[in-house]
Amino acid sequence: MSTVAPPENPESDPRVKAVFDDIRAVRGSDYVNNVWRYLAFNPALLEDVWTSVRDLMAKPTLLDFKTKEMIYVAVSIANSCHYCVHSHTAAAKARGMTDDEHAELLQIVSTAARTNHLLNGLQPPVDDVFLAEPKA
Amino acid sequence: MSTVAPPENPESDPRVKAVFDDIRAVRGSDYVNNVWRYLAFNPALLEDVWTSVRDLMAKPTLLDFKTKEMIYVAVSIANSCHYCVHSHTAAAKARGMTDDEHAELLQIVSTAARTNHLLNGLQPPVDDVFLAEPKA
Amino acid sequence: MSTVAPPENPESDPRVKAVFDDIRAVRGSDYVNNVWRYLAFNPALLEDVWTSVRDLMAKPTLLDFKTKEMIYVAVSIANSCHYCVHSHTAAAKARGMTDDEHAELLQIVSTAARTNHLLNGLQPPVDDVFLAEPKA
Amino acid sequence: MSTVAPPENPESDPRVKAVFDDIRAVRGSDYVNNVWRYLAFNPALLEDVWTSVRDLMAKPTLLDFKTKEMIYVAVSIANSCHYCVHSHTAAAKARGMTDDEHAELLQIVSTAARTNHLLNGLQPPVDDVFLAEPKA
Amino acid sequence: MSTVAPPENPESDPRVKAVFDDIRAVRGSDYVNNVWRYLAFNPALLEDVWTSVRDLMAKPTLLDFKTKEMIYVAVSIANSCHYCVHSHTAAAKARGMTDDEHAELLQIVSTAARTNHLLNGLQPPVDDVFLAEPKA
Amino acid sequence: MSTVAPPENPESDPRVKAVFDDIRAVRGSDYVNNVWRYLAFNPALLEDVWTSVRDLMAKPTLLDFKTKEMIYVAVSIANSCHYCVHSHTAAAKARGMTDDEHAELLQIVSTAARTNHLLNGLQPPVDDVFLAEPKA
Repeated sequence: MSTVAPPENPESDPRVKAVFDDIRAVRGSDYVNNVWRYLAFNPALLEDVWTSVRDLMAKPTLLDFKTKEMIYVAVSIANSCHYCVHSHTAAAKARGMTDDEHAELLQIVSTAARTNHLLNGLQPPVDDVFLAEPKA
Repeated sequence: MSTVAPPENPESDPRVKAVFDDIRAVRGSDYVNNVWRYLAFNPALLEDVWTSVRDLMAKPTLLDFKTKEMIYVAVSIANSCHYCVHSHTAAAKARGMTDDEHAELLQIVSTAARTNHLLNGLQPPVDDVFLAEPKA
Repeated sequence: MSTVAPPENPESDPRVKAVFDDIRAVRGSDYVNNVWRYLAFNPALLEDVWTSVRDLMAKPTLLDFKTKEMIYVAVSIANSCHYCVHSHTAAAKARGMTDDEHAELLQIVSTAARTNHLLNGLQPPVDDVFLAEPKA
Repeated sequence: MSTVAPPENPESDPRVKAVFDDIRAVRGSDYVNNVWRYLAFNPALLEDVWTSVRDLMAKPTLLDFKTKEMIYVAVSIANSCHYCVHSHTAAAKARGMTDDEHAELLQIVSTAARTNHLLNGLQPPVDDVFLAEPKA
Repeated sequence: MSTVAPPENPESDPRVKAVFDDIRAVRGSDYVNNVWRYLAFNPALLEDVWTSVRDLMAKPTLLDFKTKEMIYVAVSIANSCHYCVHSHTAAAKARGMTDDEHAELLQIVSTAARTNHLLNGLQPPVDDVFLAEPKA
Repeated sequence: MSTVAPPENPESDPRVKAVFDDIRAVRGSDYVNNVWRYLAFNPALLEDVWTSVRDLMAKPTLLDFKTKEMIYVAVSIANSCHYCVHSHTAAAKARGMTDDEHAELLQIVSTAARTNHLLNGLQPPVDDVFLAEPKA
């Protein structure tokens, strides 16, 4: 299925084991999902990706957890990432997204895509009132 | 700038005038921004787009207005719609998005894009636990 | 504006001159638009791109010229190519696309984008009836 | 497979039943394909999407049915929507697209994508002659 | 699986046979992979695509073979082409890409995607120093 | 031009000054380009982005500097990031990319995009020989 072969015993590498332990601790679950098992083919990349995703998505920040996951799903849909759509939709549900909110998220994403394409076809000039700084 | 020439006196067409009046009433502002002025080249398209965007984004729904605009910005960034990024970032700010929330939105969008590309490159199988229904 | 500096006297290179002459002959116009003037920084690339676009878009094939240009515009919108949207919308109009057909094209492109995003978010299984060959 | 669980007896909901009946009537076929069965998880979204797709794609408009489906396929390819490519290629064939026309469609879509990327890399200025209105 | 039915005995068509023979000769292998077997539904398209890919990717040019395949993978990831990611990752490995280089490629692609989205969200003006020609 | 207003005296913030000093030291140049000046609206985001880009692109790694920048350009083209295409094309030239190599890069990127779209339209099954691990 994948372009890399995941290591058979990933936790025999102490750097991988440390990341997997952290994943389990942060999530309060023994399950380590495939993205991390496959990324274990390169421990440095695994550490870098896990750290940045964890600090943003699993720690308290300005936006609440459910909103953050819904934004993540929106981007993943627009970028056609099959795996990411599945994993972050599941995460959004785990953070409290209801089926009706899921439907509304899909409605916003698809309506935005519609006007994105419409305006990329029309190419109207950006109104001066939208600019955060005066035009040069 | 554009691929269409906007009508010089768009409100001389009663269908266009009705939409522009509704835009002003919904927003409590006399300003009608360029997307609607250019879409006026085809009144039926103008009506259809305005109605669907208004019902979703300018009326109360499950998600709050600021969250909806932030999701809209996220999709518009991923689809590289220059105009939409500007207009919906301005709308999100008008709905209360602070500069720090804007920075966090950009952090989420760009981190999602990073992992979207990483996983499109790795192609790991989707974990069964993420599926909303059992595999066939 | 550009990432390459177009040659000042492109037709002093005989390979470039041959392409520009062909462009003028095929179109019945003296005007050579910017894409070809900038591509002249590399004559081999210029020849290759011009030949493939000309054979497909400027010669009679199965589909009529207007339909071909409208499909080209649709893809260019989805890929956010500012220059291509402008040049091929102009070409579609030159091939007979009316303003109302332009509006319908934008309606189809934007509706397709809407359902593309909706289904990338839903990920339903493809129906067997759509497959051109039996499943393995 | 999907991010939502489709209802087991979707037509027990009268709003879903009304849409499914309309799908069958419009198409003259008993088969209701997966996109509608999965969208049935939210009847309001189902109604909205079906109505807009039906009015554009299943009713007579300016462009003929085959051309409309081919444009729809083109956009779906560019947006990497697996399901949409399959369903609208099947629809285009049902509307009369031959294998040779299918090959020409793919030739146009892939050639457009080639020049889209080439010009996004070159970034030449848009020629004034392509603009529908004079530059400001 | 596919939108076209590949011919059962593709090499009974002499144009297809000529391409398949060339593929085998260029690669020094009897195996002809699926993209060519499915493209055989239209011999003219098969010839055109094979010729252009072969001349660029299988013949000596300025850039070395491994670098060319890594660039090809990068674009295929960004365009969400499942098949292309698999086939060109395999090709890059066949040209000498190690697992650590693969990880670095994924790191570059995903970091580029991150800043692409960040800057499409920020929309800063392009610095004059980056332009290959003076501004008009 | 932008969606954020860059601070007028960014280096009055010590975190911003530290990043700008590092940019100047790493590059051996006094010039700080716009992406960093605009990101200075949020010092934490500025630090995070600069650090990750610097460690990957400005420090010695497995791949040489020119190759890394060419891959970065390829992704930026596919993601339609106007600013990124300009800044990384300039960086690739500064790392030694010649005009002919630039043309070859554009040839690879655009050919890949062509086959990406072709195969997203065809959807052939991935050959087993391309998989890094046996199918489940």
